[in-house]
Amino acid sequence: MKALVIGGDGYCGWATALHLSNKGYDVAILDNLARRHWDDKLGVNTLTPIASIQKRINRWYELTGKKIELFVGDITNYDFLIKAFRKFEPESIVHFGEQRSAPYSMIDREHAVFTQVNNVVGTLNILYAMKEEFPDSHLVKLGTMGEYGTPNIDIEEGYIEIEHNGRKDILPYPKQPGSFYHLSKVHDSHNIHFACKIWGIRATDLNQGVVYGVLTEETGMDELLINRLDYDGVFGTALNRFCIQAAIGHPLTVYGKGGQTRAFLDIRDTVRCMELAIANPAEAGQFRVFNQFTELFSIKDLATMVQKAGATLGLKVEINNLENPRVELEDHYFNAKNTKLLDLGLQPHYLSDSLLDSLLNFANKYKGRVDMEQILPKVSWRR
Amino acid sequence: MKALVIGGDGYCGWATALHLSNKGYDVAILDNLARRHWDDKLGVNTLTPIASIQKRINRWYELTGKKIELFVGDITNYDFLIKAFRKFEPESIVHFGEQRSAPYSMIDREHAVFTQVNNVVGTLNILYAMKEEFPDSHLVKLGTMGEYGTPNIDIEEGYIEIEHNGRKDILPYPKQPGSFYHLSKVHDSHNIHFACKIWGIRATDLNQGVVYGVLTEETGMDELLINRLDYDGVFGTALNRFCIQAAIGHPLTVYGKGGQTRAFLDIRDTVRCMELAIANPAEAGQFRVFNQFTELFSIKDLATMVQKAGATLGLKVEINNLENPRVELEDHYFNAKNTKLLDLGLQPHYLSDSLLDSLLNFANKYKGRVDMEQILPKVSWRR
Repeated sequence: MKALVIGGDGYCGWATALHLSNKGYDVAILDNLARRHWDDKLGVNTLTPIASIQKRINRWYELTGKKIELFVGDITNYDFLIKAFRKFEPESIVHFGEQRSAPYSMIDREHAVFTQVNNVVGTLNILYAMKEEFPDSHLVKLGTMGEYGTPNIDIEEGYIEIEHNGRKDILPYPKQPGSFYHLSKVHDSHNIHFACKIWGIRATDLNQGVVYGVLTEETGMDELLINRLDYDGVFGTALNRFCIQAAIGHPLTVYGKGGQTRAFLDIRDTVRCMELAIANPAEAGQFRVFNQFTELFSIKDLATMVQKAGATLGLKVEINNLENPRVELEDHYFNAKNTKLLDLGLQPHYLSDSLLDSLLNFANKYKGRVDMEQILPKVSWRR
Repeated sequence: MKALVIGGDGYCGWATALHLSNKGYDVAILDNLARRHWDDKLGVNTLTPIASIQKRINRWYELTGKKIELFVGDITNYDFLIKAFRKFEPESIVHFGEQRSAPYSMIDREHAVFTQVNNVVGTLNILYAMKEEFPDSHLVKLGTMGEYGTPNIDIEEGYIEIEHNGRKDILPYPKQPGSFYHLSKVHDSHNIHFACKIWGIRATDLNQGVVYGVLTEETGMDELLINRLDYDGVFGTALNRFCIQAAIGHPLTVYGKGGQTRAFLDIRDTVRCMELAIANPAEAGQFRVFNQFTELFSIKDLATMVQKAGATLGLKVEINNLENPRVELEDHYFNAKNTKLLDLGLQPHYLSDSLLDSLLNFANKYKGRVDMEQILPKVSWRR
């Protein structure tokens, strides 16, 4: 089975590409390497010293004998995209190839417009390439739990049955995204749903929670395979960011009261979810939505857990409640369903003290690379 | 009160600009004249011989003494947009400035991408201009009833209260748009809603039905003020198209069984709805949604009405059930609410025999301009 991993040089994409290759899939990576370029432009860097994509792939081949083909280019360029598709002939198209940071999309008008055009056009191009020449392939698309916002009712997986004035229908779950980035994912979901309906395309939209952790079975095999780990105010996500802050003695940056509850998963479950979605493809014409996470935590609780884990390692961890740069509720109902991937066989890695210890130790190993200037959030939703 | 009409050279925009000017608003038109350019590129033309925007505005001034300022340029160019805003200093921003044809968006990948980028970026630029320099202005944005699709429950105005597992919330109404154009309007709605929430912007999203008719009080004042009237397979909408087909002896082009029910309104009500929305602005931070239509008809029923009205004028009108070029249900529930504009004082012009007679006679007057090659639909949703 041939799987093309678009965005395969990124955090989730790299781990997924290696995992699929390890499991016997014929894997290719398509990436424009934009994430490395944005790091350069913002003056930020991953905590971990990642090798070039070419070196990574070569090392993987040396270690395992498994080849990963590489296509360097941009999916918003249809000509490039279709040529890569024709060369590789993917059966599964795993699409991580989007601008994925909410703060990045909120920097200013240019970044908002860029994020939406980049993400929406890239996905439209993939849909047209599938329709035109690869109608039986399966799109596995990274969405986000942030598409739902924080409604005061339970969050279902993509659809909800609504009874209204004595009639019923199953309709797309209403979306209340919280940044121009999250909005771009909502736009994608609507576009993909429509393409499935009119062209009979197969698609799975994975509404993923916040991913934490850095080691997977494959990326842990060699220093040259090491995955990226972001801690800066633009690309660093909660928990990974907290662990790095704890390791370097910086107070944990909790936004506001920290009552925001979000969905989380270990990166070892991300790669397994991708494998499950690919191995069990959507039907022709089906727009399937899975909520991809394993646990719910409030930001405040996460910070406390990191503080405790730090204490056992002799770290004195402070928690700093910053003025929230985002516009979001800090005290709200949040209950999301996640049974579909469990039904397919996902065995979750729950957040544990040992994971926190390992993340803290990992962060400690590379703490000399931290740039203290990049830790605090600089992008405000309001201004 | 200063009202900037973006897209003021188009069918709804031109009628609205004159109506607002007539009612005492200080009006400016901003338009990139793209619609005239697309007509040229597709080889289609309005049935009516429309004057240039410059001649139209001059004639309006000669007749009424009312000046309409003109900005020719593209709102996807932020530099142009903000300069026009600074010069005119709008209090109401009426936004018709989008690619508005579903078939146009379905021609091919390029047209789909163009439609979404053009519409989404134009609206994002307006939102940023409002936030940056005109925070108290009111955005009156043209949406479409097509955002809702055809759910099996009643369609509310923008939001719906959902009770689920014992809890309740009022959430954005689920959207099931039926073309890449309709999708672009859904994307806009989500973007605007978010901007209202985080920046306190005032916005009214008008989910308009299919507009019919051509004469308004103002555009009927002079031949040089005449409005455009489209009958071709790309830009011609139901009813207007049927009346022109009847006048020239072409069978009415009903797609499929014609059981598709849609929302309709007279263009005289469009201009009045715009006036009502402007005169009663949304609150700061409010994303207000009105369903802008007056009646529901099935396409089959519309065709039969045109057939009957034709008979009284001695026209023998045939109805042709074409293979449906679109992917849509031809037999479905459809019940949409429209009380908010009525509550603000809208007095509907209902579709009547006299309107049909007048439209048929109007079409007859200009039938020499019809290009028979342009009548049948050429764009398929499937291929």
